[in-house]
Amino acid sequence: MVRFVDVAHMRDWVSATGVPDIVRGMASYLEHDFRRWAEFEKAPRLASHSTVGVIELMPTCDGRSYAFKYVNGHPGNPALGLQTVTAFGVLADVESGYPVMWSEMTILTALRTATTSAVAARVLARTDSTTMALIGTGSQAEFQSIAFRELVGIRSLRIWDTDPAALDKFERNAASLGFDIYRASSARDAVTGADIITTCTADKALATVLTEDMITDGIHINAIGGDCPGKTELDASILHRANVFIEFEEQTRIEGEIQQLHAEHPVTELWQVLTGEAPGRISRKQITVFDSVGFAIEDFSALRFVDDAVRGTRFCTEVDVIADPGDPKDLFGLVSTGAHVPLGVG
Amino acid sequence: MVRFVDVAHMRDWVSATGVPDIVRGMASYLEHDFRRWAEFEKAPRLASHSTVGVIELMPTCDGRSYAFKYVNGHPGNPALGLQTVTAFGVLADVESGYPVMWSEMTILTALRTATTSAVAARVLARTDSTTMALIGTGSQAEFQSIAFRELVGIRSLRIWDTDPAALDKFERNAASLGFDIYRASSARDAVTGADIITTCTADKALATVLTEDMITDGIHINAIGGDCPGKTELDASILHRANVFIEFEEQTRIEGEIQQLHAEHPVTELWQVLTGEAPGRISRKQITVFDSVGFAIEDFSALRFVDDAVRGTRFCTEVDVIADPGDPKDLFGLVSTGAHVPLGVG
Repeated sequence: MVRFVDVAHMRDWVSATGVPDIVRGMASYLEHDFRRWAEFEKAPRLASHSTVGVIELMPTCDGRSYAFKYVNGHPGNPALGLQTVTAFGVLADVESGYPVMWSEMTILTALRTATTSAVAARVLARTDSTTMALIGTGSQAEFQSIAFRELVGIRSLRIWDTDPAALDKFERNAASLGFDIYRASSARDAVTGADIITTCTADKALATVLTEDMITDGIHINAIGGDCPGKTELDASILHRANVFIEFEEQTRIEGEIQQLHAEHPVTELWQVLTGEAPGRISRKQITVFDSVGFAIEDFSALRFVDDAVRGTRFCTEVDVIADPGDPKDLFGLVSTGAHVPLGVG
Repeated sequence: MVRFVDVAHMRDWVSATGVPDIVRGMASYLEHDFRRWAEFEKAPRLASHSTVGVIELMPTCDGRSYAFKYVNGHPGNPALGLQTVTAFGVLADVESGYPVMWSEMTILTALRTATTSAVAARVLARTDSTTMALIGTGSQAEFQSIAFRELVGIRSLRIWDTDPAALDKFERNAASLGFDIYRASSARDAVTGADIITTCTADKALATVLTEDMITDGIHINAIGGDCPGKTELDASILHRANVFIEFEEQTRIEGEIQQLHAEHPVTELWQVLTGEAPGRISRKQITVFDSVGFAIEDFSALRFVDDAVRGTRFCTEVDVIADPGDPKDLFGLVSTGAHVPLGVG
């Protein structure tokens, strides 16, 4: 039997635990795994592109546990009443090769992306940052806001989205979260006076959500929407003015904002900053960009965190996906007629 | 909701339908897909190797449907009471990126591997073949035997395994299948007089299950156990004497028997034979080898076949893995406290 966290159980676990505690707990798993970066198998995710979106598999392994995530990205989905991004993932035991846990990851991906962003901002943003501009208030926005409040100290949000309904939704949800919220009239208006800018837009295009003249010294940009070949958010000139931090160079060169730059443009992997191997922010005037596309090790950390949290609780159930005959060489015995009691289900 | 075929439902469906009818039905899906080979995305599977085994992801896509399989291969597992190979797979809709069906694939992989082997033998073995030597009578053996009976006309089996218990198990299971069975005293004894040899052994080693002097003119070798770097079954000299047919060259060069040969050694992809683009068997004396490692398109065909067969029947159930809020941009609304009715499960 495989532990199973379906949508109902994930919702119940997140509601009962609370997003703040999950972000704090997940951050410690994430930092632990980023600090042992060399122990993991790493490869760019396997992407299947179509005209309307992408389906990706993101595996990694630390020699003891193996994990992968299935995730899609379909910017046109919300217009059809569907999620832009849905995901599920599996944790497996390297020793036996057997899966041990299967989880929904649509909600979990929002949590892990927000946690990763905030973990990065903790070493890349100015330590006295209190105001964040949020460009794009879709599915990720509330999770990003809470993660930045918990891990970075953000208290004020300046929000903008081209879709007024998405801004309404965010204001409604954030009302009880204790932020000071300013509803901006444009992206330019939103970023004015912000310490941190988070861009989280979904268009699969070489978009320019931020232009170079909107960027002031000392800012940290958390760029999470540009995560596919042909899908970027920042004017390339911003990248030239900034120090760029990424997750995994081989993948980000293909998918990140830096796909706009020369392949030798210097970048720093986040794990190097977290281990002290490379500096994070070195001055108050420096502009930092976390060019985040999402990497498999983050999903590995998130799955391990959830598995440890829900194992043996009411927040998971089980599914039977491993055909396991008493005699391991007698798989046929499982399906030969009369060899088992038929199901009574209708 | 995602359709779900767990082990119990798969067992029930296979028992109720019967392996012969499944093999015949699956063969038509498989041949249909092999004949439109160019429509598929193809890449070698993504393998994570450890000292005790391998975990692999095998995705493919035809532009409308996307499928992947998770599969492990752990030769030491039976000694621990576990399956060497376990698997599960997912079928998804390219248009929305949403998964539509999740299935156990341990049983299904045995069915699809046997079907693929027999589909290949139908164009590669002598058409008057009636006797098959079966080297390795583990999990796959009964499925291979039935597929070769249904699609190729095999009536006599000459069986051999280094594990007497595996031979006992096979004889017990095959008693009611109507074969004329000879229990050989060695691999050499087993292949004597056979029209077809199927090798299906599990050791992760450069093994020599067959040596060149055991091979007579006109034979077809269905080599399915050599499917990993460092895991082969045939003496390389056999490959030099034979015409070698494979599934997907880029993957088989890494994983198949031909890993022992020069990278330019001529091979023919099976789809070329099925479309008539390349000849299969061209003489009664020719030795043919199907160097099979298992390719993602076969799993795609198997998943599509099962999905079409079980949809709307008692042979599947549903699982909730897609978080789908009423407002697609309001993922947070699903998990904010008080936003939903708590689960009553314990």
